[in-house]
Amino acid sequence: MKMDAKQLPLADITVLDLSRILAGPYCTMILADMGATVYKIENPDGGDDSRNFGPYVKGESAYFGSINRNKLSLTLNLKHPKAKALLLEMVKLADVVVENFRPGTMERLGLGYETLSEINPRIIYAAVSGFGHSGPYMMKPGYDIVAQAMSGLMSITGHPGGPPTRVGASVGDITGGMFATIGILAALHERKTSGVGQKVDVGLLDSQIAILENAVTRYMTTGEIPTRVGNRHPSITPFTAMGTADGHVILAIGNDGLWVKFCEAVDAPALAADERFRTNPLRTEHWGDLEPLLAPIFAQRKTAEWIEFLEARGIPCGPINTIDKVVADPQVQARRMIRSVEHPVAGPLPVTALPIKMSRTPVDEEFRVAPGLGHDTGDVLRELLGLSDQELEELRRAGAI
Amino acid sequence: MKMDAKQLPLADITVLDLSRILAGPYCTMILADMGATVYKIENPDGGDDSRNFGPYVKGESAYFGSINRNKLSLTLNLKHPKAKALLLEMVKLADVVVENFRPGTMERLGLGYETLSEINPRIIYAAVSGFGHSGPYMMKPGYDIVAQAMSGLMSITGHPGGPPTRVGASVGDITGGMFATIGILAALHERKTSGVGQKVDVGLLDSQIAILENAVTRYMTTGEIPTRVGNRHPSITPFTAMGTADGHVILAIGNDGLWVKFCEAVDAPALAADERFRTNPLRTEHWGDLEPLLAPIFAQRKTAEWIEFLEARGIPCGPINTIDKVVADPQVQARRMIRSVEHPVAGPLPVTALPIKMSRTPVDEEFRVAPGLGHDTGDVLRELLGLSDQELEELRRAGAI
Repeated sequence: MKMDAKQLPLADITVLDLSRILAGPYCTMILADMGATVYKIENPDGGDDSRNFGPYVKGESAYFGSINRNKLSLTLNLKHPKAKALLLEMVKLADVVVENFRPGTMERLGLGYETLSEINPRIIYAAVSGFGHSGPYMMKPGYDIVAQAMSGLMSITGHPGGPPTRVGASVGDITGGMFATIGILAALHERKTSGVGQKVDVGLLDSQIAILENAVTRYMTTGEIPTRVGNRHPSITPFTAMGTADGHVILAIGNDGLWVKFCEAVDAPALAADERFRTNPLRTEHWGDLEPLLAPIFAQRKTAEWIEFLEARGIPCGPINTIDKVVADPQVQARRMIRSVEHPVAGPLPVTALPIKMSRTPVDEEFRVAPGLGHDTGDVLRELLGLSDQELEELRRAGAI
Repeated sequence: MKMDAKQLPLADITVLDLSRILAGPYCTMILADMGATVYKIENPDGGDDSRNFGPYVKGESAYFGSINRNKLSLTLNLKHPKAKALLLEMVKLADVVVENFRPGTMERLGLGYETLSEINPRIIYAAVSGFGHSGPYMMKPGYDIVAQAMSGLMSITGHPGGPPTRVGASVGDITGGMFATIGILAALHERKTSGVGQKVDVGLLDSQIAILENAVTRYMTTGEIPTRVGNRHPSITPFTAMGTADGHVILAIGNDGLWVKFCEAVDAPALAADERFRTNPLRTEHWGDLEPLLAPIFAQRKTAEWIEFLEARGIPCGPINTIDKVVADPQVQARRMIRSVEHPVAGPLPVTALPIKMSRTPVDEEFRVAPGLGHDTGDVLRELLGLSDQELEELRRAGAI
């Protein structure tokens, strides 16, 4: 049941994944995609909550399926001493433990980093939590939308005069999971020299602050509180969505040379000559004057016409796609970003591929279907820890697995 | 000039960074924060474009400073044969090359992956580009907002009836840079076994599709095109921002037990008993009925009162902070997420810390100021490649460095 992934970059790495829902599972999804053997440890009483998140296909959660491909599932009731003992045995054989409980939960289970690192000093222990494992909010529950809101990201997303806006995907959880992945891989690298593991502590709030780009810098250097500026970039202009005759087109003019080229393309020498718009800082400062001059130009053509027109003239642009357009896009298909895995009950389930193409150890050739709850418990405990069928039966009867 | 970062996890790694602006520099920022020696190679003619991005402090770009801390700067005019020869010498000594040019640019400079891997088969070459190094759009220019738009992320961000919405930070560039970092670290891990490097190809569009969470899954399993649902989660309810007497509060009720607890807290037994709202899927389905019932409840108290009230009752919640509130937040301060680095001209410049706390090799103890253009050219070429002062002077006169 150890996955046959010898040639993948993390094929020699074993991960015990105690995480649920999204932030931790996204981290272990990346590790599993890259060839790590990920043992997803779930409570026998229903397992990962996201097994009950829609959309469903024939009763199976496609949500769970998309995030948990390439993993193995073991049921262990960690409150049962025999299950806990089995987990501690597995820790001896593992490289990485990932959890996203509230701080203190693992310690209460007798599975805190101190305990695990005594059993296996090489273990790398990654904890993803709302606020991290220190500070006054440490014990508060933290979720994606809370991190998006408290970090300031929602306050700078949205349109002028409109309400603060949540990003339409759970970027709080997902970027937290990505930073945890980076921390784990860095700790694995360092372990090759030191021989010792360590704890990697990632907070969702911290992670959202780290992706704010220049909002913190702008506030701290100017004293002005960044606001919602709609679809434009706060300091590059025009780098925004413009309304067309039938929708929007993205216009991405990142430097003054492109600006001149654009003015020529749309036959607007007055714009090119206008001192207010000569440089990027000037265009940003005078966007209030510039937008009303650009709007009637863009209203003249449909989106598809604008894209053909601008592309032919070397002006960076693009459509705003809805998800159906994304799935059908020839580039997305050529890059094989949308895949299908065959589920024994649900049939084909869609998954999104890992966006990392590696030339010698391609990490996205094949995706294995997400495991049913406890699908691999027997195989793993037999092969990894040498348990007999009778022992497994007793553990099952005792409610330990 | 080699940084004294022996104890950091990537202290033994050397990176040649040919990237500009954000996606590539964000990747090398993470590597530098983790102790890698990052040689930022810039054109003598002005260097990285983002040196000219605001906000400025005494003429220095705080934007550039925040993304390029902990790096060294060398000016090399890669179109000059002598500078190119120097770069190829450096490739022999390096572990990683990072670039975010348009596909084909490095080949035209005679610095493509094929060439570099012949000189140093252990080199890991990471290319971050708009659309990746394959597919029909490969040669199109791709920027953050183009990736946010074409991936569908903008189509699912925003309020019902309102326009598609750009995320207020450049998550297209930033998550592209993060996936490149993950690919580089995985390739470094694999290289310890194989002894050979490889090319890591990351597209911004691919990266945005990978963070869409369940939008693709929802569309492909139901056929319904995901739309903008405002601040609520598309499949967890109520997990949203509610209007209060003076602003908004985030309410994050992720399961049915919390729902019952919430109804008790706000003394609304009728809501708890209402069959339409009993389970999370039902609440999501009937949000149109539920929201008008919750709105008047939340209008009764101010945001700060709601947070105190809900926290005391164990209901996950939080404020929507503006950036000034974020910077002043006691948790953000306790986690030391906002730092200051001393610039020789500008004085203190703000930077956001790496959100990865490592217990044994802390990666965020100290940040070194971003380098002036070419600040380390002489030191590096003398110490690394053994050039004499006279040779450096000749290279300068020839316009090579």
